[in-house]
Amino acid sequence: MAEFPQLSDNQTFLAFISYSTIVISKMMLMSIITAFFRITRKVYANPEDALAAGKGENAKKFLRTDERVERVRRAHLNDLENIIPFFCIGLLYSLSNPDFSTAVWHFRLFVAARIFHSIAYLTPLPQPNRGLSWMIGYGVTFSMAYRLLKNKLYL
Amino acid sequence: MAEFPQLSDNQTFLAFISYSTIVISKMMLMSIITAFFRITRKVYANPEDALAAGKGENAKKFLRTDERVERVRRAHLNDLENIIPFFCIGLLYSLSNPDFSTAVWHFRLFVAARIFHSIAYLTPLPQPNRGLSWMIGYGVTFSMAYRLLKNKLYL
Amino acid sequence: MAEFPQLSDNQTFLAFISYSTIVISKMMLMSIITAFFRITRKVYANPEDALAAGKGENAKKFLRTDERVERVRRAHLNDLENIIPFFCIGLLYSLSNPDFSTAVWHFRLFVAARIFHSIAYLTPLPQPNRGLSWMIGYGVTFSMAYRLLKNKLYL
Repeated sequence: MAEFPQLSDNQTFLAFISYSTIVISKMMLMSIITAFFRITRKVYANPEDALAAGKGENAKKFLRTDERVERVRRAHLNDLENIIPFFCIGLLYSLSNPDFSTAVWHFRLFVAARIFHSIAYLTPLPQPNRGLSWMIGYGVTFSMAYRLLKNKLYL
Repeated sequence: MAEFPQLSDNQTFLAFISYSTIVISKMMLMSIITAFFRITRKVYANPEDALAAGKGENAKKFLRTDERVERVRRAHLNDLENIIPFFCIGLLYSLSNPDFSTAVWHFRLFVAARIFHSIAYLTPLPQPNRGLSWMIGYGVTFSMAYRLLKNKLYL
Repeated sequence: MAEFPQLSDNQTFLAFISYSTIVISKMMLMSIITAFFRITRKVYANPEDALAAGKGENAKKFLRTDERVERVRRAHLNDLENIIPFFCIGLLYSLSNPDFSTAVWHFRLFVAARIFHSIAYLTPLPQPNRGLSWMIGYGVTFSMAYRLLKNKLYL
């Protein structure tokens, strides 16, 4: 891991930019989906938001939870717990001069697994669809972390 | 996006350091505000914490939820969902040789929008104050993501 | 902060890679611990998951919450709220040419504090074990943020 090529010549880093931007944008879509269900199903967490659905005392009944909204929120939190570590580890990994082809397949597998994970969570598809796609994404990140720690530890 | 200038000559990257450090520090303040309300209102999530408010059986009644605490926690989670993606996308964007002035206005708009978002959430201000500030921050991050993907895709 | 050494010659950055990879891997272990308790205690959040514990109507009773699972989830969320900001701020800090020894001691203290925090949360140990370890990690991140903003602000 001694060699860090210049960023502009680093094909792995350029690929990482594209893949991580796609998967983080996907994660951000979860906010839109949550907002969509909150508004169409009139399910709010804050009194000032519930005023969009009813005035005064009437608004209070829209301060509630809804299984559809909670499902999107769980999917969003799962994205945060998995996509952000992928970004952190993947950034360091892509700067540590890995084999280009190996690295790009790591990124591809992760992005595909997480897109499928969202579909499996929101549809919902029966297990083990979601479980397996979670496991693949998790394995990709651990594989990059393992390589970072194996090559050379600076402690 | 072919050119990555040296980091020390990269004015955009230096500006990104300042703005992102400010907005992440702001996010971290949410932990302090949560702790403040938990302690002053005696609202705890863990039995070992509730012992600060009462001994033995008496402690159990402080294992409760409180609208004030929950509001700060929602604001904190919203920060995680929005400020972390801004950091990830903004870091890559600031390394991809964008126009300096365009980039800095992206950062300024985002930081101002998120500070106002926290004020609007915690006061709380009536809608659409919070909704609009959320939308501005979201739009800034998407605008940077769009530019990263438009310029050149490496897949 | 004017000088950014080359990444491959940057001992601080190399140390940051090792420490941050370790502490992010630790954070990811929380997912495994959550899954372990969900499966062994038969506590599920999604109907399609609960089918692993019982068929048809019988599955519904496993859609429940459990204090053991909730505790791990709180610890995981606390990790997200603290370890991700450490990564973001620490990355920028390690690129800003800090004193090597000071930087490495920041990283060491943070990683040790967060590992102890997880032990204190999951055991659970009596307070102030968890509170103090949280505070140390928080202080380390703020100390790096302070240095980034003090040296030179580019606004």
